[in-house]
Amino acid sequence: MIAEPTPFRSREQRLAEREQKREAVLLAAVRTFNAHGFHAASLDEVAAALRISKPTIYHYLGNKEQVLLECVSRGLAQLQAAADAALQEDGNGLDRLRRFLTRYAEINMDDFGRCVIRTGEEMLSADGAQRFRAFKRAIDRSLRRLIEAGIADGSIAPVDVKIAAFTLAGALNWPARWHDPDGPMAAGEIAAKMVAMLIDGIGVPPSRA
Amino acid sequence: MIAEPTPFRSREQRLAEREQKREAVLLAAVRTFNAHGFHAASLDEVAAALRISKPTIYHYLGNKEQVLLECVSRGLAQLQAAADAALQEDGNGLDRLRRFLTRYAEINMDDFGRCVIRTGEEMLSADGAQRFRAFKRAIDRSLRRLIEAGIADGSIAPVDVKIAAFTLAGALNWPARWHDPDGPMAAGEIAAKMVAMLIDGIGVPPSRA
Repeated sequence: MIAEPTPFRSREQRLAEREQKREAVLLAAVRTFNAHGFHAASLDEVAAALRISKPTIYHYLGNKEQVLLECVSRGLAQLQAAADAALQEDGNGLDRLRRFLTRYAEINMDDFGRCVIRTGEEMLSADGAQRFRAFKRAIDRSLRRLIEAGIADGSIAPVDVKIAAFTLAGALNWPARWHDPDGPMAAGEIAAKMVAMLIDGIGVPPSRA
Repeated sequence: MIAEPTPFRSREQRLAEREQKREAVLLAAVRTFNAHGFHAASLDEVAAALRISKPTIYHYLGNKEQVLLECVSRGLAQLQAAADAALQEDGNGLDRLRRFLTRYAEINMDDFGRCVIRTGEEMLSADGAQRFRAFKRAIDRSLRRLIEAGIADGSIAPVDVKIAAFTLAGALNWPARWHDPDGPMAAGEIAAKMVAMLIDGIGVPPSRA
């Protein structure tokens, strides 16, 4: 068989193109949700931004709640992937926790992480809220495992693990509400400063004061 | 003039009774908002809880947004009072910051503070949102002054003051979303643990590891 130049796209090309379009819709949607809030945001605006029709959005991602769930799932998957990576890395517990927290903060200042933090359960259907909670619980469990590993190897102080996880996550969730992506300070710089403060504390020990 | 026993209440008694009723309405309202979220909460439920009519609520506090604004203002006033007290206390910057942060966390786990954290600007009118922002900015400024005082007297590490304020506030705002007032751990205990972690850090310094 001689392969001729062909104007017909291969199955792989068609799948890749479909995936590319789906990604474009998802990114336009998450940015619209983050800019206006889920309730005020409209899929009409998402469609207009991409110069497509609203049914095209339904085709790729479903209705407005399904689009939101997909955005939130993407952000949560990024956070979970960062946790899984940290759990498998070398180094003591504190080093691995530091890497995870830095990545966690960066994700929360990025499009999908920002959407995770800004999404309240009351915006979702009962089924969606349940999936959302389960996903967040899994990330919390991973965070606690990293803290426990650090306590076990002596690199982390013997803190209350549950309260520590909430304290760290709370501090690093907050930038999703105040950080301006177009502001003067880059997400990576903010993440590094915040994580250093949380690990080292802001108080000067009496011996060094 | 001989003062006779009288069934007529004095002006002071009437004012005190009015104030007592207003407080009861405010407390029932904030608990309803916190339980269901502002959008889902209804003044009918608040009225039913007190066995009064909805117009009675309007009489004491105004419409639903005005009630929310009053709840939020109360919480913000508690936070500002805690900051003002800390700014006027004796002790080094870190000691004063520690007292403020502990109180800040406790307020955020109490009725009105919880409402402050759970209220988004998008729930308020433009005017209400502006007052809300101005109030929060004032508290942030007080927090930064306490951090600056500690850096100046050497009790706090030379951190980025803005990022430190956001990190501390973020961590201590979070319990308003997860803490269960009926749960096993008291607000005071959680506040103390969180503040200790934020001041001392959770990492064990290499010299002690």
